[in-house]
Amino acid sequence: MSSTGGPLNAGVLGATGTVGQRFIVLLSQNPMFRIHSLGASERSAGKAYRLAAKWKLSDPMPDEAREALVKPCDPAQFAGCDVVFSGLDASVAGDIEGAFLAADFAVFSNAKNYRMVPSVPLCVPVVNTDHYALVAGQRAASGRKKGFIVTNSNCSTSGLVVPLKALQDRFGPLRRVVVTTLQAISGAGYPGVASLDILDNIVPLIEGEESKMEAEVLKILGGVSADASACAPLTDLRVSATCNRVPVIDGHTECVSVEFAAATPPSIDEIKQCLREYTCEAQRLGCYSAPAQVMQVTEEEDRPQPRLDRNAGGGMSVTVGRIRECPVFHVKFTLLVHNTVLGAAGASILNAEYAAKKGYL
Amino acid sequence: MSSTGGPLNAGVLGATGTVGQRFIVLLSQNPMFRIHSLGASERSAGKAYRLAAKWKLSDPMPDEAREALVKPCDPAQFAGCDVVFSGLDASVAGDIEGAFLAADFAVFSNAKNYRMVPSVPLCVPVVNTDHYALVAGQRAASGRKKGFIVTNSNCSTSGLVVPLKALQDRFGPLRRVVVTTLQAISGAGYPGVASLDILDNIVPLIEGEESKMEAEVLKILGGVSADASACAPLTDLRVSATCNRVPVIDGHTECVSVEFAAATPPSIDEIKQCLREYTCEAQRLGCYSAPAQVMQVTEEEDRPQPRLDRNAGGGMSVTVGRIRECPVFHVKFTLLVHNTVLGAAGASILNAEYAAKKGYL
Amino acid sequence: MSSTGGPLNAGVLGATGTVGQRFIVLLSQNPMFRIHSLGASERSAGKAYRLAAKWKLSDPMPDEAREALVKPCDPAQFAGCDVVFSGLDASVAGDIEGAFLAADFAVFSNAKNYRMVPSVPLCVPVVNTDHYALVAGQRAASGRKKGFIVTNSNCSTSGLVVPLKALQDRFGPLRRVVVTTLQAISGAGYPGVASLDILDNIVPLIEGEESKMEAEVLKILGGVSADASACAPLTDLRVSATCNRVPVIDGHTECVSVEFAAATPPSIDEIKQCLREYTCEAQRLGCYSAPAQVMQVTEEEDRPQPRLDRNAGGGMSVTVGRIRECPVFHVKFTLLVHNTVLGAAGASILNAEYAAKKGYL
Amino acid sequence: MSSTGGPLNAGVLGATGTVGQRFIVLLSQNPMFRIHSLGASERSAGKAYRLAAKWKLSDPMPDEAREALVKPCDPAQFAGCDVVFSGLDASVAGDIEGAFLAADFAVFSNAKNYRMVPSVPLCVPVVNTDHYALVAGQRAASGRKKGFIVTNSNCSTSGLVVPLKALQDRFGPLRRVVVTTLQAISGAGYPGVASLDILDNIVPLIEGEESKMEAEVLKILGGVSADASACAPLTDLRVSATCNRVPVIDGHTECVSVEFAAATPPSIDEIKQCLREYTCEAQRLGCYSAPAQVMQVTEEEDRPQPRLDRNAGGGMSVTVGRIRECPVFHVKFTLLVHNTVLGAAGASILNAEYAAKKGYL
Repeated sequence: MSSTGGPLNAGVLGATGTVGQRFIVLLSQNPMFRIHSLGASERSAGKAYRLAAKWKLSDPMPDEAREALVKPCDPAQFAGCDVVFSGLDASVAGDIEGAFLAADFAVFSNAKNYRMVPSVPLCVPVVNTDHYALVAGQRAASGRKKGFIVTNSNCSTSGLVVPLKALQDRFGPLRRVVVTTLQAISGAGYPGVASLDILDNIVPLIEGEESKMEAEVLKILGGVSADASACAPLTDLRVSATCNRVPVIDGHTECVSVEFAAATPPSIDEIKQCLREYTCEAQRLGCYSAPAQVMQVTEEEDRPQPRLDRNAGGGMSVTVGRIRECPVFHVKFTLLVHNTVLGAAGASILNAEYAAKKGYL
Repeated sequence: MSSTGGPLNAGVLGATGTVGQRFIVLLSQNPMFRIHSLGASERSAGKAYRLAAKWKLSDPMPDEAREALVKPCDPAQFAGCDVVFSGLDASVAGDIEGAFLAADFAVFSNAKNYRMVPSVPLCVPVVNTDHYALVAGQRAASGRKKGFIVTNSNCSTSGLVVPLKALQDRFGPLRRVVVTTLQAISGAGYPGVASLDILDNIVPLIEGEESKMEAEVLKILGGVSADASACAPLTDLRVSATCNRVPVIDGHTECVSVEFAAATPPSIDEIKQCLREYTCEAQRLGCYSAPAQVMQVTEEEDRPQPRLDRNAGGGMSVTVGRIRECPVFHVKFTLLVHNTVLGAAGASILNAEYAAKKGYL
Repeated sequence: MSSTGGPLNAGVLGATGTVGQRFIVLLSQNPMFRIHSLGASERSAGKAYRLAAKWKLSDPMPDEAREALVKPCDPAQFAGCDVVFSGLDASVAGDIEGAFLAADFAVFSNAKNYRMVPSVPLCVPVVNTDHYALVAGQRAASGRKKGFIVTNSNCSTSGLVVPLKALQDRFGPLRRVVVTTLQAISGAGYPGVASLDILDNIVPLIEGEESKMEAEVLKILGGVSADASACAPLTDLRVSATCNRVPVIDGHTECVSVEFAAATPPSIDEIKQCLREYTCEAQRLGCYSAPAQVMQVTEEEDRPQPRLDRNAGGGMSVTVGRIRECPVFHVKFTLLVHNTVLGAAGASILNAEYAAKKGYL
Repeated sequence: MSSTGGPLNAGVLGATGTVGQRFIVLLSQNPMFRIHSLGASERSAGKAYRLAAKWKLSDPMPDEAREALVKPCDPAQFAGCDVVFSGLDASVAGDIEGAFLAADFAVFSNAKNYRMVPSVPLCVPVVNTDHYALVAGQRAASGRKKGFIVTNSNCSTSGLVVPLKALQDRFGPLRRVVVTTLQAISGAGYPGVASLDILDNIVPLIEGEESKMEAEVLKILGGVSADASACAPLTDLRVSATCNRVPVIDGHTECVSVEFAAATPPSIDEIKQCLREYTCEAQRLGCYSAPAQVMQVTEEEDRPQPRLDRNAGGGMSVTVGRIRECPVFHVKFTLLVHNTVLGAAGASILNAEYAAKKGYL
């Protein structure tokens, strides 16, 4: 809530895209925010949202968006917004988010452009909200009073770091992780993946995705420098990611093998218990979008499945199953994350809720 | 060819199932064999094949099968067959294949029942035809003159061992392999996977598949005991397999990371060259079904893809792509194998061609 | 609500099937009902529901069902139920529903067994609740005090009759209707359609479906005899239905051409207005499950689409689009109906709400 | 064959597109033609074909195309071609095909641009090769010695006219036809249909398709004017088409209801016999691509199915099933046509074979 107790005014950049659409659905259901301004490209600006957006979600377009006039992504047009969410494409996100920052907005971004900047939190809100310590440094360095930027991770990274964080917290450092993903098409936006490429098919490449995962995990699971001026990524963990596109609408499946650094690894039962018991600060603060359970640990052998489990916790829970010994490392499991909720728009929104609770807004 | 120079008479057990259907298509195109007898369950026996089989292949039902009368799977009914191919379900394969063996038939089986018996070759015909050395021992131990059994591997194993064999032959022992599969639905037979389980979905479990892969690789890449009485599986290689079912008709995709035992692993270029240059004895003998290239190594970053690459080499080639360094092990790559050709019926047939060329039939 | 003002106790027969699962999700969200008893086959009876049911819906299993003990479908076990919903398979529905009727229960059934019995309402609750007039006759004929049976139609029929009813009411009798359906796989239950039959494929036959549609439309759009003892199906309308199965999870698409009996047919604009303005008695009574709009008429040329429109009105609205002149008849259009909501469980539930509002329970 | 007895030199315009790819596969297997020149946009010109084309067919890229240099679509670059096939997009086909005509080439086109020109044959080669009578008129009117243009129809039209032609020839004029199509994604080219639009979905609109079908049928089933200067479309047949896009790779399914003009329509058995017995002149001339059976009439109730039947007759046969009485018209049935073979490239090639046999080349 804002200082006056009412909902915060939210702007959405890239509002007509698939991530933007998910922002709009989630914000329309969220009592902490009121949709205030929708921004998109010049081509869409000036049109009613329902005419500018090619709607692609199974949830119907919220009424508060239908007739809203789309604005250009110009900070001057977003006066009155307490918070700005960005679902912009990376090709334009760098400049536009930079302009909003310069205009002293609090920006919560899905784009990759600022993720690896040392002073910018790369925050999966059920994992590393301690990285908000970087915000003060950002403001000090730039002389801004209110403005800052918090990014959330690549959609695949979002799922992976959740159990890894729990394991690291409880059992100490991890040494090696091998992960193979089966990623949904909604992650590629619209028109995105051509149907001739994915019907009765698998595409074994997602450009740039593997290196993003391998780097982002280290930053998220790492800490913050002593003076809170920069992140301090892990240096001893090695991650190998292989990313595939599969014919699934929503929900990334990830097959993970983990090796602990400890001489004596935990048992499978200890690992299950650890994942079940994991909680995060956003839950403890009572953030609206924080899931009741960060991870849903399933004992059903053939789960998680994207169609059945992607909506767990409203898309904010990670489902982890098939936890078993790995003949090569210590443990292997399969996880599922909703790539456009916890993996994108939902993470940004929970990041903003957290920021509000902690007085950053 | 038979001793008289004509094609060999082939029987097919389990002829109405999906593997049986593939046998029939492949045999109908193969000059070395003539379809002689089709066997199936009592329910089908006595019917014309076209009425007994619910045909599920895109290739039309061959004319020589359409009106053939289906027989029960009784050795007495298969007199005149020079070779018997089995596409039987594991629930009945043990007894029936055993009966054909006892009746002195040469049996080539896809079923898992005899695969791990030490005296039985588990033979991927482009990989380990040297295991045919076990055949003499089988005969000696049983007192059979002609009869023996050769099995081929699980469909996922078939793809995996091909590059691993090439690497092991050239660069020495492997230490660790992590593989994640994305397996086609045809591997589960008919009716097999329910559509509600796989449309817009992934099933992260294939019962028994992971342990089969982990064990079969060791047997196939291993050798034969000095007296040729038993196989000698590898003992120093560790394999971790994770198997998923995906909405693809034919073609298993496998994401593989490999660690060599050698202190100095080969370079990526050396590995590519090794895979490209790999040849097998079935090729050198001029077997009809042996592919021109055992592996097709692709430089296109987004390949292999099941829809585009499964028919490489008539389904008998393995396509290997995305060969690159692995941040955790030495090399990782993605391979594709046609699960019902090299992964099932095609392997059996090439095994039989090899046996004929070497005088075992 | 019951006479005491609390929610009505609901039993569900066939609770573990796909229609039963939808009943459970919808009832768990419905303030008029409380899930009281879940019945299934002997194989499931005595188990906790979560163990007996193979859950196949994207909505998670409601908590009130998870630990409920499944009962056999025996009326003695359902004492205390105010209403019984049946999602039974037709192979057993005749006997079991008959037994519940004999035991004086109010039965709302999805099964086909009693649909065409003249004294039984075949009721699409947004179309022909006037057929409830048959209930008194049912009771009189059987000597039952409370018990009666109301059926809802085949899922495809449910969608078709909604615009036809509106057109008939406004513009007079229809003469000819040609309809081709593209039906979702969930309509076939579980395991239902094999994935090998529907991936990259269409199945141009749904057993018995076309004749059901052709007959049910006449009964639903017809009336009730003067003495309310039997339905009075239309006799002058001819309907030709062609039914296809398509690779869609939920939502039946139907392409419809209509010829009016009137010499001067209405204009396209009049037809659109008629569909938009159509309302039903269940709405006027304020039934909980009645959609705000019976039909959502879309002007977007490429709608309705199952993935985008099946949840309109919580699955209780029919979406009608592409309303245009037909070169052969008078008008053609495409409609979409959620086959397991308005086409199955949702219709039964709204039928029961209507019955409660009208004092039949 | 050419006058010298060798294969004819073939040029392909739009060679990198999906129709162009099908041309290349079919021509590489056809003894009457030799691939001589491949033309595409300026962007592709000058590159090796394997680098210029994003290959999307399951059949591997033919060797004779791999290293061929792609040319711009300029007639001067196609000297030496005996025949030019066009798989060009309609946005450029008008000008380019016009230029090739002006340069006196024999052009066989899939594009819609010239289809409805009265002097241009719109020829489905198993249906109306009698329309070649227009070629002489074309040449006379233009003063060209060798050049002419023959078009083939829209892919959906190609399937529909085949049984209609047989029925019309045997039983006299048809009065009314209602057809609903379920069309494969390959018909939309590449990238074509976005996967987010078609996974778990149906798109109930294909822009311009319905009016094309409704008009083309009349031209194809009609005749030629007495002086062979123009086509003479049917005037008494009314056709209503509804076109849907479905998640199928190749193969259009069409549900058809037909009313005869005759007072006494034929019986269902007479209709089946008529379709089975239908032959065409291209067969009688022994054209290489003419299928053994123009129509495959199936008695299996659940056929035709695209995955199982699209390759009938090498993709040149139409499969017709479910032939039964229509409660509204006289007969209804379901047909399947391979949309990129008989529905596109295969039709053009057979048209050219026919032209060669008849001395037009």
